[in-house]
Amino acid sequence: MKLGIDLMGSDLGPSELLKAVVRFLNDYPVDIVVYGSDEPMIHHQRLTWVKTSQVMEMEDGPMAIRRKKDASMVVAVEDCIANKTDAVISAGSTGALLSAAVLLSKPLPSIERPALLANIPNAKQTVSVFCDMGANSSNTPDQLAQFAILGHIYAKSMNHINQPTVGLLNIGSEQKKGDELHQEAFKKIKALSQLNFVGNLEGRDLLSGNVDVIVTDGFSGNIALKTVEGTVSAFGQLIKEAIMSTFLTKIGGLLIKKSLSIKKDRYDYRKHGGAMLAGVHHPIIKAHGSSDQEAFYHAIRQAYQIVEAQVIEKMKREFE
Amino acid sequence: MKLGIDLMGSDLGPSELLKAVVRFLNDYPVDIVVYGSDEPMIHHQRLTWVKTSQVMEMEDGPMAIRRKKDASMVVAVEDCIANKTDAVISAGSTGALLSAAVLLSKPLPSIERPALLANIPNAKQTVSVFCDMGANSSNTPDQLAQFAILGHIYAKSMNHINQPTVGLLNIGSEQKKGDELHQEAFKKIKALSQLNFVGNLEGRDLLSGNVDVIVTDGFSGNIALKTVEGTVSAFGQLIKEAIMSTFLTKIGGLLIKKSLSIKKDRYDYRKHGGAMLAGVHHPIIKAHGSSDQEAFYHAIRQAYQIVEAQVIEKMKREFE
Repeated sequence: MKLGIDLMGSDLGPSELLKAVVRFLNDYPVDIVVYGSDEPMIHHQRLTWVKTSQVMEMEDGPMAIRRKKDASMVVAVEDCIANKTDAVISAGSTGALLSAAVLLSKPLPSIERPALLANIPNAKQTVSVFCDMGANSSNTPDQLAQFAILGHIYAKSMNHINQPTVGLLNIGSEQKKGDELHQEAFKKIKALSQLNFVGNLEGRDLLSGNVDVIVTDGFSGNIALKTVEGTVSAFGQLIKEAIMSTFLTKIGGLLIKKSLSIKKDRYDYRKHGGAMLAGVHHPIIKAHGSSDQEAFYHAIRQAYQIVEAQVIEKMKREFE
Repeated sequence: MKLGIDLMGSDLGPSELLKAVVRFLNDYPVDIVVYGSDEPMIHHQRLTWVKTSQVMEMEDGPMAIRRKKDASMVVAVEDCIANKTDAVISAGSTGALLSAAVLLSKPLPSIERPALLANIPNAKQTVSVFCDMGANSSNTPDQLAQFAILGHIYAKSMNHINQPTVGLLNIGSEQKKGDELHQEAFKKIKALSQLNFVGNLEGRDLLSGNVDVIVTDGFSGNIALKTVEGTVSAFGQLIKEAIMSTFLTKIGGLLIKKSLSIKKDRYDYRKHGGAMLAGVHHPIIKAHGSSDQEAFYHAIRQAYQIVEAQVIEKMKREFE
C-alpha cells in the first residue's frame, strides 16, 4: 500500500506532520509519498518526497484548485487519481480539499453531494459515524438518504458493526417532526430496506452512543458539532475555575487530575482520525487543521484502514 | 399587578408549583390567580383559585385548544386576554401553549411567526437572549429579522443593555456563509439600522457570552440547545466517573465538590426563568415542564419583570 500525504497548510507545519509519518512507517508496512515545498529532513527507506511549489492556504476558495496546479494538495490528489497512491491525507484547507475531491476525484454516480464523514466518540466509549459534518450548507432529502447509506457502509466496514443503527438528527423523535427537508428525508431513509433505521434523534442524543450512524444535513451537523466544542470549552473553563479557587480545591484537583484526564481521553478527537470525503472515487482524508503528531498519526491510520477495508469499493458498488 | 398561573400539566404536579407561588406572594406585592382542577391546600390573601375541569396533556396537539375549552391553560390564557390578569405562566405542554398564544392572543401585526425567546446563561456569567428556541420547525429570512428585533427589545428592557449586540447563528463567520435562508437573513438583519448587528456566530460561540442576542431559526436553535444539554450530561457523567474511580479521587471530589457546585450554578437554567412566547399580544411564559419550586419561582419573576418593563408594549410599538 502507498499513502500520499500533503505536508502543507496545517497550523503546526510540515515538521509536526512528519513526526507522525515516521511513526506510522515504523508501525505499518506501507510506502509513503509526502508532498511539500521542502525536502524532509528525515530519511526512510519507504518514504519518498515529491517537490511542489505552491501551497493551498486556508483562505483559498474552491477555484484555487484550478489556479494552483502545483499546490501540494492538488498534486497529492492527482497522484491518487492516477493510481500512484492508494489514499490521500491532508491537514490543509477543508474547502480546498473538498473542491479537489469534487472537481478531481469526482462524485460517485448517483451521489449528488459528497459529505464529510467521521467517527465521533461518545459516552458509551464507542464511536458513532457522523455524516455530514458540514461539507454542505444545504441538502435535499435524497442527499440525506445518500449520507445514510455512506454512513452505514462506513460503520459496517470500519467499526465492524454488522447491522449498524441509523438515526436522523431532527428536532423531535416522532416521524412528523421537523421541517419539510427532514420529514421527507425520514421517509426516504425509512424506505431503504438495507438500513437499520431507528428514526429521529435529537441534539441531546448526539454523544449518547445510542446509534451507530448519525445522519444530518451539513448545516445542522456543523451547528451541532461546534456547539459540542463550545460547551466542552465552557465547562472545561468552569472546572478549572472550581479547582483553582482555594488551597483545598487545588489539592482536590491534584487528586482527581489523572483520573479525569484518563476519562477525558475518551473524547480526545485526536485518537479518532480525521474526516473522510465520502461519496467520491478515492480515499481522501481531511485531518484537523491544528493536528499534532498524535492526531495526524490517527488520520494516516484511518486512511490505511479505509484502503484495507475497501470502503471506497463498497461505496462504489452501492452507488453504481 | 395580577399574574395568572396554570397549575396543571407539569412533571412534578400542582403542589410543587404552588410552593413557588407562595414564595413569590411573600416576596412581591402581586395578586395571583391559579387555574387547576383542585382547590389549593394553601390559603393566602392575594391568592385566588379558578376551578377548571380539563388538563392539557403533553401529547395534546395544537387543535386541543379548541377541543378542551375548560383546560386550565386555555382558561388562564383567555383571562389574560380579557385583561383579568397581566401575564400567564404555564409549565404545561409547549405545543399547546404555543397554539394558545397564536390562536387566542394572536401574533402582533407584521409578526409572521411567534418564537420562543429566553435568556441563556454563558461563560461570562451574564445571559444572552436566544430566539427562536424551537417554536418553529422552519423559518424565512423575514422571520429571522423579526426575531432579531424581538430579541433586541428583550435584551434592552429585561437585561438592561443599552445597545445590545445581535448575532446570527450560522455555520461560519463570513457574510456569504450558510444556506440561502441564512445569507438572506444576514442581509435583512444588517439592514435594520436600530440594531447593533455584529454578524454571524458559530455553534462554538453559543455559551461564550460574546453577544447579547443570538438569532436563530427554530430548527437550528432546537438542535443547538439540545446539543448543549447532551454535552453537559455526557461531561457530568465523565466527571462523576473520574471522581468515583479510586479512594483518593473520591477525597479529591469531596474537596472540590462545593466549589464546583458554586461554579455550575452559573449555568443553572432554573435561575433564569422560562421562555417567553415572543410576538403575541400578551405576556405568556412557558416554564420548563420539569420545573421544581426554584425554576417556577423564577418563571413567575420573569413574568413579573416583563409586565413591569412593559416588554409587550414595546414590542407592539415596534410591530404596529
